[in-house]
Amino acid sequence: MEKPTIDSRIPVAVLAATGSVGQRFVQLLDGHPWFEVVALTGSERTAGQAYGEACHWLLSEPMPVWARDLPVLSTVPEAVDAPLVFSALPADTAREVEPAFARAGRWVCSNASAFRREPDVPVLLPEVNPDHLDLLEGQRRARGWSGGILTNPNCASTGISVALKALQDSFRLSRVFVVTLQAISGAGYPGLASLDILDNVIPFIGGEEEKLEWEPRKMLGRVSGAEVALADFSISAQVNRVPTLEGHLACLSVELGEQADAAAAAEALRGYQAPAISRDLPSAPRPPILVREEADRPQVRLDRGAGRGMSTVTGRVRSDPIWHLKLVVLSHNTIRGAAGGSIYNAELLARCGYVNSGS
Amino acid sequence: MEKPTIDSRIPVAVLAATGSVGQRFVQLLDGHPWFEVVALTGSERTAGQAYGEACHWLLSEPMPVWARDLPVLSTVPEAVDAPLVFSALPADTAREVEPAFARAGRWVCSNASAFRREPDVPVLLPEVNPDHLDLLEGQRRARGWSGGILTNPNCASTGISVALKALQDSFRLSRVFVVTLQAISGAGYPGLASLDILDNVIPFIGGEEEKLEWEPRKMLGRVSGAEVALADFSISAQVNRVPTLEGHLACLSVELGEQADAAAAAEALRGYQAPAISRDLPSAPRPPILVREEADRPQVRLDRGAGRGMSTVTGRVRSDPIWHLKLVVLSHNTIRGAAGGSIYNAELLARCGYVNSGS
Amino acid sequence: MEKPTIDSRIPVAVLAATGSVGQRFVQLLDGHPWFEVVALTGSERTAGQAYGEACHWLLSEPMPVWARDLPVLSTVPEAVDAPLVFSALPADTAREVEPAFARAGRWVCSNASAFRREPDVPVLLPEVNPDHLDLLEGQRRARGWSGGILTNPNCASTGISVALKALQDSFRLSRVFVVTLQAISGAGYPGLASLDILDNVIPFIGGEEEKLEWEPRKMLGRVSGAEVALADFSISAQVNRVPTLEGHLACLSVELGEQADAAAAAEALRGYQAPAISRDLPSAPRPPILVREEADRPQVRLDRGAGRGMSTVTGRVRSDPIWHLKLVVLSHNTIRGAAGGSIYNAELLARCGYVNSGS
Amino acid sequence: MEKPTIDSRIPVAVLAATGSVGQRFVQLLDGHPWFEVVALTGSERTAGQAYGEACHWLLSEPMPVWARDLPVLSTVPEAVDAPLVFSALPADTAREVEPAFARAGRWVCSNASAFRREPDVPVLLPEVNPDHLDLLEGQRRARGWSGGILTNPNCASTGISVALKALQDSFRLSRVFVVTLQAISGAGYPGLASLDILDNVIPFIGGEEEKLEWEPRKMLGRVSGAEVALADFSISAQVNRVPTLEGHLACLSVELGEQADAAAAAEALRGYQAPAISRDLPSAPRPPILVREEADRPQVRLDRGAGRGMSTVTGRVRSDPIWHLKLVVLSHNTIRGAAGGSIYNAELLARCGYVNSGS
Repeated sequence: MEKPTIDSRIPVAVLAATGSVGQRFVQLLDGHPWFEVVALTGSERTAGQAYGEACHWLLSEPMPVWARDLPVLSTVPEAVDAPLVFSALPADTAREVEPAFARAGRWVCSNASAFRREPDVPVLLPEVNPDHLDLLEGQRRARGWSGGILTNPNCASTGISVALKALQDSFRLSRVFVVTLQAISGAGYPGLASLDILDNVIPFIGGEEEKLEWEPRKMLGRVSGAEVALADFSISAQVNRVPTLEGHLACLSVELGEQADAAAAAEALRGYQAPAISRDLPSAPRPPILVREEADRPQVRLDRGAGRGMSTVTGRVRSDPIWHLKLVVLSHNTIRGAAGGSIYNAELLARCGYVNSGS
Repeated sequence: MEKPTIDSRIPVAVLAATGSVGQRFVQLLDGHPWFEVVALTGSERTAGQAYGEACHWLLSEPMPVWARDLPVLSTVPEAVDAPLVFSALPADTAREVEPAFARAGRWVCSNASAFRREPDVPVLLPEVNPDHLDLLEGQRRARGWSGGILTNPNCASTGISVALKALQDSFRLSRVFVVTLQAISGAGYPGLASLDILDNVIPFIGGEEEKLEWEPRKMLGRVSGAEVALADFSISAQVNRVPTLEGHLACLSVELGEQADAAAAAEALRGYQAPAISRDLPSAPRPPILVREEADRPQVRLDRGAGRGMSTVTGRVRSDPIWHLKLVVLSHNTIRGAAGGSIYNAELLARCGYVNSGS
Repeated sequence: MEKPTIDSRIPVAVLAATGSVGQRFVQLLDGHPWFEVVALTGSERTAGQAYGEACHWLLSEPMPVWARDLPVLSTVPEAVDAPLVFSALPADTAREVEPAFARAGRWVCSNASAFRREPDVPVLLPEVNPDHLDLLEGQRRARGWSGGILTNPNCASTGISVALKALQDSFRLSRVFVVTLQAISGAGYPGLASLDILDNVIPFIGGEEEKLEWEPRKMLGRVSGAEVALADFSISAQVNRVPTLEGHLACLSVELGEQADAAAAAEALRGYQAPAISRDLPSAPRPPILVREEADRPQVRLDRGAGRGMSTVTGRVRSDPIWHLKLVVLSHNTIRGAAGGSIYNAELLARCGYVNSGS
Repeated sequence: MEKPTIDSRIPVAVLAATGSVGQRFVQLLDGHPWFEVVALTGSERTAGQAYGEACHWLLSEPMPVWARDLPVLSTVPEAVDAPLVFSALPADTAREVEPAFARAGRWVCSNASAFRREPDVPVLLPEVNPDHLDLLEGQRRARGWSGGILTNPNCASTGISVALKALQDSFRLSRVFVVTLQAISGAGYPGLASLDILDNVIPFIGGEEEKLEWEPRKMLGRVSGAEVALADFSISAQVNRVPTLEGHLACLSVELGEQADAAAAAEALRGYQAPAISRDLPSAPRPPILVREEADRPQVRLDRGAGRGMSTVTGRVRSDPIWHLKLVVLSHNTIRGAAGGSIYNAELLARCGYVNSGS
């Protein structure tokens, strides 16, 4: 597929556009070279209002002018005339609504966790496992859908999976300990009460550790027939909520399949390239993995914006007294880990011809 | 030794009393049943001033009235007439000054790291290894001192060592991964610039990981002749500075020497008792280890004050998909991890007869 | 009335005891010399459960042991057998429920704003206007109540009113500008979303400026027959929410009725005494007004706890280039400005014989 | 003067380029259409190193590539070959160094306070008082300089002065109360210790209130011969440091020279236009004044970036019970209030022909 020209941009919709992830979709799609937002949906309460009124805009970037007057539509396929929809729905709603859209022939790029565990639904990071798109044919056939569902991973799984992929390619993986320090925006809005997190750490996020111990194994696994064979390594995860706004940081200890020192590991991370198909997509992170050399980097506030918030930032790659490596991984949770990741996925869909402006 | 009566309180001094740890010593010694502060020392710049003037008091508790008019003395043994001195000196100064005091017959309870690596110097937590006091006789003999030096561990080592001791006693220890989330007060004053930590995480504290990988093994080791045989387990540590004021939280994954499930581990932690000699000292934590049952505890701000800041607080004791256990440990870094820990150590010294009011 | 003895403590109840203000009542009443908590009420959802289960305890001080097993009762007079009740109800509920309790013969010490504007209901600070209790007789008669309602002011009005009272007594007041910097706990729990306040200031709190421009004038006014003649000075208020946990700070510029320099004003603040009737009550602030001399005090975190959170802390008393004085006032919003203030009011009620253990 | 073309960009230098304001100059000058950075200076300690090594870069935007290899020069005119220099020097150093540059024929656009009080030195905001450039001729003549010094105001004076100018033009000004809530970055780096500001407010910034009570009167005054006649209104200022990263917010109460209601005042702010000479400069704020209509705006984190950090953001324009108006003003302190303001000033200098690429 050729790069779409401006006058052939693909019409897209954002489902649940008034929430915090939905707003990020609207902001990141402003001026997108391939996609044009033609529809925004919301709850029954907001349907019918102008987006500019219905939405309590929370981003420091101003609301795009074109979005203000778009009407908020109901979140049903009949109301939404676009071949590609971005879903910022909460998991429970997504479970009902996303299949309805897929059945109606739409490609759903979802940020929700609802379908990540389904064997025929890809959990996708374009620089890691673009070949998992191969699941889509089986998904459509088995479910009788003319569209399909594609998900991006949990915001905390994202950066970790990219870094582990680079290590897997070079040295194989055996076992991984990971402890995360996650920003409050990961909980959405209103999310955490301020009294719960100022001058505090909460060592718990419901369901998050289970996702972290499983999702990377799916993404780093192999498509085998109609599903993915999980990658053969194990993860132990502990998660924490800390008083930062954006950017999830993780400390990893890694046992590799073959011996490697810190310098070789840093080199493998630094040299990692996305597969050719996803390398030059509009949202492709440049570089895919940034390796900071300083002893005290990456830092959440200083480094979360690397590659316009799309790069995975690593650092403190050093040897581990028990296993092979220690390292730190940082990823922007509301850009790369949510809306930006879904958009990057949709670009891959478009590149691979699943959706186009004339569909 | 009998419990000292008020009129036989032991005269004590605080070295470097104007800094942030020094202030905590002054505050915690206010009204102490066994010790009476008779001397405060400072830098050459402040020597001669009244403490109330020399000191930029940073605690929310008011400065004790008796402290205001005490003159700031030079930090030399000749200026300080007290058998027991608490050292809040920085490590480099401590290396020179503490031996001078020990040589002059004083017992130095030090918060500095300068001598923790010396084979004949105890790193002491009274509820963990009071028998390490046995090193003191050899220390005095070998060094020709009439006093001696006793240290408390690094603030981040403290809570971890207490929790690991309980697990060691019940199930033996094999390997431990630990990731810390440490409060800004651990860096002293002025410590971190506010621009460096607001809305940020810094995954680095100089020298801290090395201490965390070694100090617990010394404390959990056995006195063997004139030194301690390090406990036979390994630790891999990663540390982070987070925007909290007080309280160091740590996430641990533990491989035990013998199989144990989470319930048994929680029971071992909950049932842990300090050795009889240190159990009812004035600063003894009650309980030594508090086990929170809730899914989202311990939390830094809510739980750091448990047992007046002296207890080790644990929680989220659960099974680990790779090793045996995951758990979270919290300890108050400026109370238990610094001044309060030193005072508790000094109480043990007094209880064991090393120092008394008539010495 | 004599000081009650332990065995004649007055039975009290806390209405809406599971919320954040209710919890503070429970914590502050623990060990109170005059009052004994015999009943806790909650919403219909929690009624019937044990308090320890129904309540998501948010304070760093542990829940008092006696509270854990108290059953949560319905918030109706029939369920509550106590002559004195503390109300932590929200304003809209308070409007219905508090009169029911008063009608049933209970004295209601309310933290709610519902009745502050009623001419016959005192807004009371015992060190400022204890004589406003005189309104109670008329209130009972006119409303046919055998009990009555007594309120404490808005948390931001509290400290300001105490400081202004001292200036009024010495120099009369003419006009006052006030800008507040208020802590997040003032909004209750869950209150502000963390995403709304981290690294942020919100220059708005609904209804707060109106309260600040009116309540101090009522408290500093004179009882005249069945109501209070508002004090004859004007206030212009602007309010801000800032990322602090507890402690409301206010910057005041004051035009006095008679000339006074900064030194005289500081002296008037420092020398302020509560009227004799309220001076030695158990919760009386000691001192009523603390005047900090340092150029950079009061500071919220360091000074909010002065007088166990009950004192009004002032500082930076200096001349104003337009009017007479600039000064800074700090008051602890959840202690003095809420539960602690109500308890102090109740102590005055008891001292004046309105309620006693045999009533 | 014509707009410079790329190949005739004016060579500029940044003095004290390694500090926090200096870094902001480097970042904002990256890709500037009129100016090309040819020299960076630092302290004697850093002179000779590459900028990329000498500088502990604190911004989340990455260091421009061209800056990394520029050598850090000594801060003396002989070392710096550029007709225009931006000074990020501290006030005490600026007092010595800036005249040396002016004497050597350089135009110094200074962020320092050192010369703001000099009668013949403009304190300039291009959208407020571009005519104050007229002081420069007298300055050069009287001091025998072939260059000159031009300053931008204190970061907290900036937004206030823009908003007051709009009100002055429409309604004249009589008296102004202002209370500020200032971000930590206003103190530079390292600036405030984190222990001093987390969960805290400090109601004091040395020298700041004096600047706020004087600088706006100079900027809103008239050039009269060789100096500025201060505008005839008075200001009373109180300042606070709050735990925000960037963005100074101020609450103003204003007595006007002629009656105006809130709607008229908002209209005057909204309709304010910069004088034609400065309206379309590259850094000109668009709009000069943004008026937020929502009850709870402007908010520091959401609105500080308006107009790429160059606009003055106002809101909550409402009537005042004592004087005429209350309003809230927000300005980005490190962009508009420091480096960005200086660059905007330099653009005006260039536009007016004081400096050009061939000078």
